[in-house]
Amino acid sequence: MGHVKTLRYDKGVLHLIDQRKLPDKLEIFECRSFKDVEFAIRDMVVRGAPAIGVTAAYGVVIAAAEFLHLPKGEYVDSLKSSIKFIGNSRPTAVNLMWALKRMEQVIDENLDVSNQGIYEALLDKATQIEAEDIKINRKMAKHGNEVVPGGATILTHCNAGALATVDYGTALGVIREAHHSGKNIKVFADETRPRFQGARLTTWELVQEGIPVTLIPDSVAPVLIRDGKIDIILVGADRIALNGDTANKIGTFMLSQMARDFNVPFYVVAPISTIDFEIEDGSQIVIEERDFREVTHIGEFRIAPQGI
Amino acid sequence: MGHVKTLRYDKGVLHLIDQRKLPDKLEIFECRSFKDVEFAIRDMVVRGAPAIGVTAAYGVVIAAAEFLHLPKGEYVDSLKSSIKFIGNSRPTAVNLMWALKRMEQVIDENLDVSNQGIYEALLDKATQIEAEDIKINRKMAKHGNEVVPGGATILTHCNAGALATVDYGTALGVIREAHHSGKNIKVFADETRPRFQGARLTTWELVQEGIPVTLIPDSVAPVLIRDGKIDIILVGADRIALNGDTANKIGTFMLSQMARDFNVPFYVVAPISTIDFEIEDGSQIVIEERDFREVTHIGEFRIAPQGI
Repeated sequence: MGHVKTLRYDKGVLHLIDQRKLPDKLEIFECRSFKDVEFAIRDMVVRGAPAIGVTAAYGVVIAAAEFLHLPKGEYVDSLKSSIKFIGNSRPTAVNLMWALKRMEQVIDENLDVSNQGIYEALLDKATQIEAEDIKINRKMAKHGNEVVPGGATILTHCNAGALATVDYGTALGVIREAHHSGKNIKVFADETRPRFQGARLTTWELVQEGIPVTLIPDSVAPVLIRDGKIDIILVGADRIALNGDTANKIGTFMLSQMARDFNVPFYVVAPISTIDFEIEDGSQIVIEERDFREVTHIGEFRIAPQGI
Repeated sequence: MGHVKTLRYDKGVLHLIDQRKLPDKLEIFECRSFKDVEFAIRDMVVRGAPAIGVTAAYGVVIAAAEFLHLPKGEYVDSLKSSIKFIGNSRPTAVNLMWALKRMEQVIDENLDVSNQGIYEALLDKATQIEAEDIKINRKMAKHGNEVVPGGATILTHCNAGALATVDYGTALGVIREAHHSGKNIKVFADETRPRFQGARLTTWELVQEGIPVTLIPDSVAPVLIRDGKIDIILVGADRIALNGDTANKIGTFMLSQMARDFNVPFYVVAPISTIDFEIEDGSQIVIEERDFREVTHIGEFRIAPQGI
């Protein structure tokens, strides 16, 4: 297929590729209420900082449609509550807050228009955020490709691909661009415990496009780096502090430390919306706690004993 | 239960805890032929360098019983073939070769006695190798405990426990000793991709004995090390070269590098039989290639897409 479109909004319904089901099944998850959107983000139907931002924006649009019949004051209050509700779904991803802030601003700027007018302004804004994401990824891919050597073996962690954005991807966007510009690259994809985004999503995207990829357990990467088998490391980011400290999927720190120890170029590929301008350094980034079953189980398969 | 006995030889049958089934089920795998023993080692019914050595020794005893009816010359030839056959089951574990060499020596020293005499000498030697393993582990545990600080948080990787030996364990032997000597320790166990020996076996052993343990994905350990949350790292070994280079489960190098970068004491707990006196350094250690399904599947659950 080649082209992955992570989300699509159409007539009040947000269609999401259900990333929990990949690579087994390509299923679409439909969000018909803002609560569906909150669930989709929290349960990782959709993931990846930029994709979460756009999804959240459409969540507000859906809320605006749901509450359309309410009196004006209640309408605005309900919209603001829904923004807060959606905002609590994933604490680490700053794009979520960034997108919701832009949506809230649209409400505040349109307090004197009708409910329908607010709804339309919100829809315009979400559509704009979506279009921006696509444009930004294409631009980042072109810029990023400049630092990729010809014939490079590239290591990536987690999924910073089309599935993590609206399409094309951040780190995988650069990899796509390098591939399509004829650089004859190869990719090692970390499987990325505990949720296997690398194994399930990154390899799926790359296999679709015929980009050569080898899947490795996370703990194999340090050995490849040590042995000089990796030319460049490209990862995405969940949140970046003003000093450059970056929060990303567990395992990213290990790679950055190895990159430093063995002099391998390490790049974080992320849009400006991933920078949190309110925090000075990484110590202020809240890292989310998730269900222990992500570690003790693989699907329904229990790998750890009872009592752990 | 507390006490794990990985293997037991009784009247021509070697009983092995089937480590492929843990922690779900505690099942016994019975080896009635030397081919069963080869399969058990290759398919990882039994694993862990010291346990493999003792298992291989009993494999030769079983071969000696199987071939008892053959004429003397053929008997010796068949025994030597079976030794070669068992020796090819796991190339990385040096204890396997070490144990088989000792068994072969018994044959060579008893060429002038009856088949029955050779069989009995082999049985004596295997019993002795088993008893040695138990004694050595208890001793290593006592020595190792001297370097464990009171109240230590200990990190371990893979399973270097009772299940990897006849009982008690190497790295986990030290942890057991530290716990039972009242040091009030806590353990972080890496899950150890791709086969999850940490998740499946180490946590199982520790939960049985009430030793506090937390299971973490392999990629979490570097962050804990960076943040000063690990006081000491204890691992086992598959093979050690004369210069101290050590081959162990993938992920061990990463931990040793992090230990160096962040000044955390790092110990390899292994018996002399794990040292390969024929190789100068780690570059000469053969690392085995295993089935790609260990990475693409968890049990029967496929995590990676077709085509990877």
